[in-house]
Formats: sequence, C-alpha cells, structure tokens
Amino acid sequence: MLARAGEQGRPETTVAVTRGARRACGFAVLGELPLPNGRRADLVALAPDGALRIIEVKSSRADLQADRKWTDYRDYCDRFYFAAPMELDTALFPAEAGLIVADAHGGMLAREAPPLRLAPASRRAMLVRFGSLAAERYCALAFGEETVWL
Amino acid sequence: MLARAGEQGRPETTVAVTRGARRACGFAVLGELPLPNGRRADLVALAPDGALRIIEVKSSRADLQADRKWTDYRDYCDRFYFAAPMELDTALFPAEAGLIVADAHGGMLAREAPPLRLAPASRRAMLVRFGSLAAERYCALAFGEETVWL
Repeated sequence: MLARAGEQGRPETTVAVTRGARRACGFAVLGELPLPNGRRADLVALAPDGALRIIEVKSSRADLQADRKWTDYRDYCDRFYFAAPMELDTALFPAEAGLIVADAHGGMLAREAPPLRLAPASRRAMLVRFGSLAAERYCALAFGEETVWL
Repeated sequence: MLARAGEQGRPETTVAVTRGARRACGFAVLGELPLPNGRRADLVALAPDGALRIIEVKSSRADLQADRKWTDYRDYCDRFYFAAPMELDTALFPAEAGLIVADAHGGMLAREAPPLRLAPASRRAMLVRFGSLAAERYCALAFGEETVWL
C-alpha cells in the first residue's frame, strides 16, 4: 500500500519501490486491486498472454517481517513477487516468491518466481476485477463524470 | 468510431450518442476496443458479474445501412446492442440486436438484446484485451510515462 501510517514501512521508500516495480513490469499494471479473499494487492500486472502477476512492495526488513499473510496472494496469480529497495538483503525474502529490486527509476528481476496453479474460476474473477477497476479509473480520469445506471 | 471522415455518419451525432450510451451502461466501459477478428468495437461494457456487452453506435439511417458486418461482433459478447439518436426509427434496427436510444446526456434501453453464446476462450481473450487496454490507458493518463520492459 502506498500509505501505511504508523506501520513499519518507510513511506518514501514504498512509493519509490512501487513506482520502479510498476515501470519494470512493462505491461498493464494496476495498483491497489482488491482480491476475492478480502486482501488488497499492491500491484497486479496483466501480460498480453493473460498471465497475472502480483507484486507486494516491502520498504524495509520490518515491513517484510510484519507480513505473515503473503501466501494468501498466491491463489490469485500465475507468479508472485516481492519488490524491495536495493539495500535490503535478498536473503531475507522467501525462496518461494520472486524478487524485484527497485528504486524510483525502475526495477530489475533479481529472482524469477515459480509458476503457480491459478484455478480457472479465480483467473476469471481476477480478469473481471482487473478490467472493471482499470476501466472505472480510466473513465473517471478521462471523462470525470459519474455514470448513470440504466 | 468517433471519427468516420467521408462516411455516412454525422460526427456530432456519433459523439453525442456514444457519450449517452456510455453513461447509460453504468459500469466499466471502454471505447474503440480491437477484437480478435480484426474489427473494432465502438463501446464494450464489462459488468461486475463478468458479462460483456458490445455497443455499436449509429448516427443515421445511412450509417446503419452501410454496416453489413455487425453480426461479426456477436462472437465476442454476451449481448449486442446498437445505440442510435432518438429521431431514428427503431424499426430500422435488426430484431436480433438490442437497442439503446441516446443523446449526449444519457441513454435508455429501448429493446433488450437476446443473450448470445460466448465461447470460454473468446471470453478469456476479451477480458485480457479489455483489462490490458483499460490499464494501459489509465496508466498513460495517470502517470504519463513510458513503461520499460523487464
């Protein structure tokens, strides 16, 4: 999340790493996507072939250690990654997750994530959420008007 | 399409009807979405339950009569509609399509569209296209930066 007041995160680092990781993904990326299980993904990237990647941004060692639920994201993507600033020891991160090292200018894939098994119903739910949220955000910015129900 | 130079369309009417139909859809709507068959849909609406609607905008009788390929859209949505200005006779429109009557302020469903059979692979392809295009358009507007491939 971009703003985690009172938590172990470092807000400026979180913003910088999120920005760099977003740029590194290179395809369609949305921030703050609510998942069917009630959690919220920092970044979700949709590749042209339909592959879904979830990226959780960690700004510090404490931020990482406070996260006991990262495995909850793995049911909703084809690959799961952490994104972190360069100064964090990559050995801190679980081997079952991919790792993107990023600053505000971009990111590098430090470790590829293993492929996960995304159930067809979960994929469909994620594609619908991703498309709905992206189109609503785009329309709000582009047209700035409330929609009216038929 | 919003600009059809040299065609039978009336550009101001097309813009107005497109805007009204977009507002009438009330959920996530994208304009000018390229389809897997090479055509381009005027409007595609994604409902929260994942249903996909395609809407083709017609500004005049001549615009409608020039369209001999509207049935090509039916392989890529759950329901297909025309949208037209109020002054057009609704009897001109094929009974196999839904009809939205619209002006720049909004639209009304004049005739519900029959449900179509959307193949699972086509649904997945459409959801990926919809999500990718929406997120790319949103990111371009919100961040105004080029993405960099990993």
